[in-house]
Amino acid sequence: MTESALTEAYIRARLDAQARPPGSLGRIEDLAVELALIQKRATPCADRIALLLFAGDHGLTQEGVSAYPAEVTQAMVATFLAGRATANAFARAVGVQTTVIDAGVAADLSHPDLVDAKMGRGTRNAAREPAMTVDETTLALARGAAQATAAVARGADVLALGEMGIGNTASAALLMHRLAPAALDDCMGVGAGHDAAGLAKKRAALVRAAERSDAVEPFEVLSQFGGYEIAMMAGAIHGAADRNTPVIVDGFICTAAALVAVRLRPETRRVCLFAHRSAEAGHARMLQVLDARPLLDLNLRLGEGTGALVAAPLVRAAAALLSDVASLDDVMGGRL
Amino acid sequence: MTESALTEAYIRARLDAQARPPGSLGRIEDLAVELALIQKRATPCADRIALLLFAGDHGLTQEGVSAYPAEVTQAMVATFLAGRATANAFARAVGVQTTVIDAGVAADLSHPDLVDAKMGRGTRNAAREPAMTVDETTLALARGAAQATAAVARGADVLALGEMGIGNTASAALLMHRLAPAALDDCMGVGAGHDAAGLAKKRAALVRAAERSDAVEPFEVLSQFGGYEIAMMAGAIHGAADRNTPVIVDGFICTAAALVAVRLRPETRRVCLFAHRSAEAGHARMLQVLDARPLLDLNLRLGEGTGALVAAPLVRAAAALLSDVASLDDVMGGRL
Repeated sequence: MTESALTEAYIRARLDAQARPPGSLGRIEDLAVELALIQKRATPCADRIALLLFAGDHGLTQEGVSAYPAEVTQAMVATFLAGRATANAFARAVGVQTTVIDAGVAADLSHPDLVDAKMGRGTRNAAREPAMTVDETTLALARGAAQATAAVARGADVLALGEMGIGNTASAALLMHRLAPAALDDCMGVGAGHDAAGLAKKRAALVRAAERSDAVEPFEVLSQFGGYEIAMMAGAIHGAADRNTPVIVDGFICTAAALVAVRLRPETRRVCLFAHRSAEAGHARMLQVLDARPLLDLNLRLGEGTGALVAAPLVRAAAALLSDVASLDDVMGGRL
Repeated sequence: MTESALTEAYIRARLDAQARPPGSLGRIEDLAVELALIQKRATPCADRIALLLFAGDHGLTQEGVSAYPAEVTQAMVATFLAGRATANAFARAVGVQTTVIDAGVAADLSHPDLVDAKMGRGTRNAAREPAMTVDETTLALARGAAQATAAVARGADVLALGEMGIGNTASAALLMHRLAPAALDDCMGVGAGHDAAGLAKKRAALVRAAERSDAVEPFEVLSQFGGYEIAMMAGAIHGAADRNTPVIVDGFICTAAALVAVRLRPETRRVCLFAHRSAEAGHARMLQVLDARPLLDLNLRLGEGTGALVAAPLVRAAAALLSDVASLDDVMGGRL
């Protein structure tokens, strides 16, 4: 089977010949097909899944868009590095290796396990000026792609993406607003947690940001409203696509990064696997826009790659289908 | 924290104190609470998950209730033992140990890895006579409980149940019909695969069986319409409940066994975790009757415990939450 001949029909025929009723694994069979087509291999592999966890701060927090202080970003990075965050617990539970990347946290961080890709001490305040310069945007995309490429070089079969950044649901909402596109109110949710007053404050900040720039071109939208960690996740999807490597996309913010990646390079949609439908308002709509059918629906709204992590075993199981399972002919003919 | 003091409120308070927005893990937090309450431990454990895979044949196949010949049951048992079935591939992918149990396959089987709990060479034809005698029913329940107890003694933190038995969706439909209860047509689906003619034949056989006995008492219903592997799964739930051990229940047939278990001993409902909503018609209704909220919805309809296997990592992740995650106080106070 040469690469060029690997078609969905061929993979479906292999699945249908296996020792079970055709189609009886539903969504997992579809996922197996996706994996084979992404990796361009008749026997896809998802043994080694690597989580890239990008952290960055947001100038938008100056407008009070988050219920949490910006300092939580750096505290959570320290928690990831100490192995004591939710993402660490999940990563251990499902056997996924985690790399923590400083994309632009507003603090001087130094740790042997922290990848330094820092673009700055947080983005600028998008309610008043572009969040990132054009050069920063280009560089953040490139650094994200380089992280993906490096992970694949280290042996990852599949990548998972996650993020930490107080204020980044606000940034993601603005990206969705312009790139879906969708009305701002359809892109907004409670983020890490907001009461009505907090939500009103967040909305006002988003309206100011949206009124400041009428950007609709994807690179410019990313520069105006994005974040360092979001740009790097978008770049990572590009890097993964260049290596035929599936990417498990986490929740609302990560999906906004996927939307950026796909608007910049539509052909990179093919490597994206969407982990779950988040509880964050707007996520279901963004998934629709991307024609994405998420694997899980567990009312998650944390981020940190936690949704991608709990979807990882499904990806492994789907890949195993095409490697390990006997055909019905073998079974009934006693050839096991 | 003594056992008697372990309450949902206490566990929720611990989860809420962790370093993430309260409630942001949705269904997984609920699952963590369930695990702690089932195991009666503030830090539940789901490291070692054991799949008990029960196989048995059904006299109902003489009525043409299945699209597959009855010989497929023994062929699939051989495939499980050779490690080449879908369940094996999934079990390896998610790190679950599998035990294959001959509950009553209609063939002489012998293999060093096969547990011999054979009750007979298939049940009797429930369309004509009771599928199992009263003594067989009692013994099958006890043998299932013993399998669960033995698995826990071998070190399993959590059990998963699966089954193989040509014709067993027909048996499960009859159990649901009497124990849900529900109209026979609401309990019937295509099973392993049926065209309209096949489905009509299955329906006619189920109607004959239902007309033969008006049993509604759960033990009698199990005896009249059940199967050896179904009775053993129900018994396994009882055995697990006696050991405060969570049980991951697979799809339609396994849920019918759970319905039997719960109707016989209502307090055993507390150990049941429902893995997924199957594509088999009737499953959604049966889950409702059991007040069960399945973890996954992936359009699966295979059995073999495959749905329970892909849900196993979620159970592990939920348990890890209560063991491994720092509190927000620790994080913000720099005590990691």
